[in-house]
Amino acid sequence: MHETQRQRTRDLLREEGLERALFSHLDSVKWLTGYAPQVQLGGNHFAGGPALVWYEDGHFTLVVLDIDAEHAGAFGDEPDGTLLTYPGYAVEEPVRSPEHIATALGTLTGSASGPIGVEMHSLPAHLYEIVQAAGDPVAIDGRLVPLRMVKSEEEIALLRRNFELSDLGHRVAAVTTRPGLREIDVWTAIHSAINREAGFRVPLGNDCVVGYRDPNNVGGWPKDLEIKGDTALIVDLSTAYGGYWSDSCNVYYATEPTERQIGIHRVIEETLVFAISLIRPGVPCRDVDGKVRAFVEKRGYPVYPHHTGHGVGVSVHEEPRITPYNDTPLEEGMVIMLEPGIYFPGETSCRLEHGLLVTKDGAEVLTSHIDPL
Amino acid sequence: MHETQRQRTRDLLREEGLERALFSHLDSVKWLTGYAPQVQLGGNHFAGGPALVWYEDGHFTLVVLDIDAEHAGAFGDEPDGTLLTYPGYAVEEPVRSPEHIATALGTLTGSASGPIGVEMHSLPAHLYEIVQAAGDPVAIDGRLVPLRMVKSEEEIALLRRNFELSDLGHRVAAVTTRPGLREIDVWTAIHSAINREAGFRVPLGNDCVVGYRDPNNVGGWPKDLEIKGDTALIVDLSTAYGGYWSDSCNVYYATEPTERQIGIHRVIEETLVFAISLIRPGVPCRDVDGKVRAFVEKRGYPVYPHHTGHGVGVSVHEEPRITPYNDTPLEEGMVIMLEPGIYFPGETSCRLEHGLLVTKDGAEVLTSHIDPL
Repeated sequence: MHETQRQRTRDLLREEGLERALFSHLDSVKWLTGYAPQVQLGGNHFAGGPALVWYEDGHFTLVVLDIDAEHAGAFGDEPDGTLLTYPGYAVEEPVRSPEHIATALGTLTGSASGPIGVEMHSLPAHLYEIVQAAGDPVAIDGRLVPLRMVKSEEEIALLRRNFELSDLGHRVAAVTTRPGLREIDVWTAIHSAINREAGFRVPLGNDCVVGYRDPNNVGGWPKDLEIKGDTALIVDLSTAYGGYWSDSCNVYYATEPTERQIGIHRVIEETLVFAISLIRPGVPCRDVDGKVRAFVEKRGYPVYPHHTGHGVGVSVHEEPRITPYNDTPLEEGMVIMLEPGIYFPGETSCRLEHGLLVTKDGAEVLTSHIDPL
Repeated sequence: MHETQRQRTRDLLREEGLERALFSHLDSVKWLTGYAPQVQLGGNHFAGGPALVWYEDGHFTLVVLDIDAEHAGAFGDEPDGTLLTYPGYAVEEPVRSPEHIATALGTLTGSASGPIGVEMHSLPAHLYEIVQAAGDPVAIDGRLVPLRMVKSEEEIALLRRNFELSDLGHRVAAVTTRPGLREIDVWTAIHSAINREAGFRVPLGNDCVVGYRDPNNVGGWPKDLEIKGDTALIVDLSTAYGGYWSDSCNVYYATEPTERQIGIHRVIEETLVFAISLIRPGVPCRDVDGKVRAFVEKRGYPVYPHHTGHGVGVSVHEEPRITPYNDTPLEEGMVIMLEPGIYFPGETSCRLEHGLLVTKDGAEVLTSHIDPL
């Protein structure tokens, strides 16, 4: 599990002359080990710090709170992997997990000298002091991000499962959106259906907003805003299963869409088809971004204020970003989202988003939640 | 808003001779400012670090990601409070929020010398380096925890609202628990009802487990385990509204409880009544803990493997912990949970939990979700 990811990381660190490194960003930890903890309550408050991966001489050690070991799968059985747990919850004495994780880390770092790669943005200061005592910290934040762009078969399978779950959510949205309900009512129906299908609690993002929101009808979490007769409802769904995320967006109408809504929707349908036609290995992301924006602008509509798309994996938004500045060329095996939109704050809005696997000579659409209007 | 909290903090820091301090633990930040961000997706991944509170000469500055300012309420209008935001999401250039939060912090710390109180366990290393450059870090982790024990009127109002929401969840559990459904089905019904009542997404913990789970029928997140005819279902609910949490537990039976289940349930009902009778100012927590454990043991049942209770506030579990080691005396204005249980793994389990406000001469029960069997 996740051997490909660890080999790419090993190659990177060797190129950089780093024999030791400490990863503390959850996305890095998930990607290196398959560790997939629950996130919906904002982290386990009995933990002494974030889950860590210590790298030394080609070997990876995952450090997690004892009760979180169940989310580590079989990582500890891998030939290049060790699972190290530390105690958290206690009744006979105060919870001392910050000390326990520090002790665990100290047994790994030892006291040799030399450079140690460190994800600075996510490593707490009390653990950073241990690294400082064991060597010379070298910032490596974001260094795994480019390595994560091309997905392994194992990752693509997890992403496919997530897209199935978000597709299900959209089927529920389609039959639930009706006048008199509120954003939150549609959302709870979607989330319940996804949880019941999965058989456990699945984190769910992103947006469920009526088109008449003003000023922001681009995105946001559901509120008690009413779905009225002529309301367009943007539903943008990301599920997290096995540590990987899906993404997807569609628009639902409470009754029949107005002529103007139909016009906007058709343009975005055409824009999305056009955008997908641009996807193939070798094309720079900025070219896709520029052409898609121009397509919308040429039709007389305001250009959306967000990215044209982005990669998806252990994070909902990751590289390659389909943005004006990004020179990165598309590669076979990347999984990307495309999501053009048109927004008239206070009136209506539309965004359609598909997920795609970049193939040898084009793209495979991984989402099936959009029917033509 | 939260003036009481800031005054207690000011007094503490002055006693310690600290004119400057940096708080980075979310519980501290919420408690000092009322900031209440969404947590269900594991934090905003466009943020450059945790929300921060910088303290200097009696004044508090809250540092948050631009789009998270909406969760800060009117804190920036307080005479002793300033709201400082930094940019995150960007389209025309890469997201550089870790640099932006560092820049924002740097404008606050300046370059004077002298001690700076630091919550080390939650401050990322790249921000810690800024503090190190601006003075001499002094660890103050956990120092606000005792100050948080006695609640203000404002906090008690928020806790009451949360207990109303968890009470609602229990009413739904009572009518939903039936043979053929699964843990996850009951859970989604509960969570949907709470979200619809609140009008927005409410984080929800903690447990929904069939009594026949083996080995752990004490707690856990709902799975696709079936509710059978003689199943006891432990439902332990915590909602988060306005940055504060509730807690609560009850047991539901798929059909009629067995004689043995009734016997266990009655003992725990009696234990909880006994536990509540012990609550008044001045009583050390360890005394409550010891007497409640002895009450269960005397009736011939195994003593529960967890705390007897705990405080609740910006965190689900906080001081005062009702545990064997805790000498802390109860005080008027504390809000505590009491939750005795009996567990026979693989067979059945029972836990009942009420929330209480410690009053001048006893306790007011804040939860209303438990009817006698």
